[in-house]
Amino acid sequence: MTSDLLSRRAAALGGHVPTFYRQPLEIVRGAGVHVWDAQRRQYLDCYNNVPHVGHCHPRVVEAIAQQAATLNTHTRYLHPMVVEYVERLCAKFDHGLTQAIMVCTGSEANDVALRMAQAVTGARGVIATDATYHGNTSAVSALSTRRPPIGGYPPHVRLVPAPEAGMTDAEFAANVADAIAELEAAGEGFSGLMLCPFFANEAFPTVAPGFLCATEQVVRDAGGLIMADEVQPGFGRLGSHWWGHDWIGLVPDIVTLGKPMANGHPVAAVVTRPDIMEAFRSAFGYFNTFGGNPVSSAAALATLDVIEEEALVQNAATVGPHVTEMLRGLDHPFLHEVRGAGLFFGMEFRKDGAPATDFVAELVEQVVARGVLLNKIGRHGEVLKMRPPMPFSHQNAEHLVQVLDDALKATPLDA
Amino acid sequence: MTSDLLSRRAAALGGHVPTFYRQPLEIVRGAGVHVWDAQRRQYLDCYNNVPHVGHCHPRVVEAIAQQAATLNTHTRYLHPMVVEYVERLCAKFDHGLTQAIMVCTGSEANDVALRMAQAVTGARGVIATDATYHGNTSAVSALSTRRPPIGGYPPHVRLVPAPEAGMTDAEFAANVADAIAELEAAGEGFSGLMLCPFFANEAFPTVAPGFLCATEQVVRDAGGLIMADEVQPGFGRLGSHWWGHDWIGLVPDIVTLGKPMANGHPVAAVVTRPDIMEAFRSAFGYFNTFGGNPVSSAAALATLDVIEEEALVQNAATVGPHVTEMLRGLDHPFLHEVRGAGLFFGMEFRKDGAPATDFVAELVEQVVARGVLLNKIGRHGEVLKMRPPMPFSHQNAEHLVQVLDDALKATPLDA
Repeated sequence: MTSDLLSRRAAALGGHVPTFYRQPLEIVRGAGVHVWDAQRRQYLDCYNNVPHVGHCHPRVVEAIAQQAATLNTHTRYLHPMVVEYVERLCAKFDHGLTQAIMVCTGSEANDVALRMAQAVTGARGVIATDATYHGNTSAVSALSTRRPPIGGYPPHVRLVPAPEAGMTDAEFAANVADAIAELEAAGEGFSGLMLCPFFANEAFPTVAPGFLCATEQVVRDAGGLIMADEVQPGFGRLGSHWWGHDWIGLVPDIVTLGKPMANGHPVAAVVTRPDIMEAFRSAFGYFNTFGGNPVSSAAALATLDVIEEEALVQNAATVGPHVTEMLRGLDHPFLHEVRGAGLFFGMEFRKDGAPATDFVAELVEQVVARGVLLNKIGRHGEVLKMRPPMPFSHQNAEHLVQVLDDALKATPLDA
Repeated sequence: MTSDLLSRRAAALGGHVPTFYRQPLEIVRGAGVHVWDAQRRQYLDCYNNVPHVGHCHPRVVEAIAQQAATLNTHTRYLHPMVVEYVERLCAKFDHGLTQAIMVCTGSEANDVALRMAQAVTGARGVIATDATYHGNTSAVSALSTRRPPIGGYPPHVRLVPAPEAGMTDAEFAANVADAIAELEAAGEGFSGLMLCPFFANEAFPTVAPGFLCATEQVVRDAGGLIMADEVQPGFGRLGSHWWGHDWIGLVPDIVTLGKPMANGHPVAAVVTRPDIMEAFRSAFGYFNTFGGNPVSSAAALATLDVIEEEALVQNAATVGPHVTEMLRGLDHPFLHEVRGAGLFFGMEFRKDGAPATDFVAELVEQVVARGVLLNKIGRHGEVLKMRPPMPFSHQNAEHLVQVLDDALKATPLDA
């Protein structure tokens, strides 16, 4: 069955369409923190952040079903739901971030953010880290190192070394300052710095709150804007704060949101200050047909309701440290570091002082074979990455750690 | 109520967020070809193409509700539904277009199409018309004349005069040839031509089938690709054909789809040949988290089912000509032309040989005041644009024409 589906898939979608794991999984059902494959095998989902409040949460499903049966249009007609949602969303932000544009994907959100910074500064130059990913549009993917853009990197993009163990905040800020100087010297000017405040795609290196303060000052001194990509850390995943930028102590001018925002419904947003919104709206006649439609707004509202009513941020704040504490208790010769915040955590493995790439690749397969979903990240794939749905419980955490313990013992050291 | 909502909306979404009509409508419910405002007033919807098979079609609503309650993940896990949908979608195409990438918006689809053409040709130069709109990402909006990109038009974009009454196919082709020569001379090279085969945003000028044959040859001779944006004419709207490119007799290399594809659920796609897909997938590691997810696929599948089972393409083929025939029977001194195909039609008004811009603006308001939704288009807003949901009946057509007749009589000639 699965091999038939794989060949039909390749015929219909083309080659090189990524799947997870050596033996791709056919997942057919989800509920809470669990999913089931076509053979009815259950998996504990420790990886998917899109079903933020749990797979197929009945409250979100009901909101989608009810609004889809009532009306689905676009924001050129007035509708109270998009207004109510943006009001409630913006109430979760400080720093004067009181307005939002609703879009459909994190990629669209970051694409808008880049243009907001251009509209404010009149410049195009933009800086990101050299191990990041902010999305798949032409403009945004130019910030990605995964595959260089066709025709090479555009001249207005500069990538600075991502934070890693041992890098000081002053070093990171100095690299940003150098990149700004390069952009200015090249005549590109400087519009801003885009980063994930948790450095999620950079394998979330351990950095102390305050790490970005010096960088923020460098960016402000140069007249640039701070764009915080909250697609991964946002909506309370880090437990102690609703947003990654508040967790690390960074004041953003623009915040982008995506994946977890409506529990899987294609909803994303750009949140900013009125002065920036005005500059963008004046410079650019932006309209997004599906963005903020009544069904998307209903799904996002229900997701917000569930986060609050089920106290999921508090859950991340209590379960997260419990998990990392238990993970630190695991004994393995290659275990280099357990790190994370809230329900976003991982384990870095090194072997003879080098990234244990092959070991981690095999470990992932061993864990999945035991019915737990997770994955790896890092420049060399040396970090186990875990980012479960937010209703992840202490019991789920204990299940995960038990499986990890078994998998660690079963994975050959010479893998 | 509405004025309170307007001020809350401006505070939350910012200024310059477009609405339709002098007195913006608060639409709260939809069913079939009708919508209702907050005052329970009914409108015949002659404008919205997103609810392609009718507002809140129960079949599509049920498919969304059922799949949302079962599973919503992404294509890195295998799922039969996205494969089944792409198979069924591609079966609607000739010209070797057998593969598709699922995305979330028409903008994302066109953004991918531009990169496919770049991947195949190794060049960036692209041509569109000077009265078009293909979407809102940074890359795609550079093809739009509505608002120049911040920092000016990029050097790889050339806009040719849109077709209009009196322009021959040879003239359009010659302009494209000139633009190609300019791009080559500027060192940009030529990747392709992107256009809507119905020239929807160019106010759908009357062009005969075959109009683009000479242009197609020019593009092929230069090694470029034809990108057909089917967001508006696609899925049978033109009645005689499923796709605008087959209606006009154009063989595309890449086709993009959007708005009507899943009746309002944020779903879009890029359909192409395997050789082009391979070039793109090899050059660019594309992944779209929400694209082709099980709920999106279920919504798109149900929409396809309804189009077929309710014979909506045939409906467009019979009701469309009936409407335009009745519209031609309307008597008005400014009525210059009634035109269209299937359920995409309009009326151009001219006064003293010039576009009757103000008259049409007032006419739209008069029609809306009588409970019928439509809008205007054209470089000077001189064309009434009508594009109703596909279940639009003969009776709906008679209602529309009666209201138009009344509104024409009520609109002052010196408006």
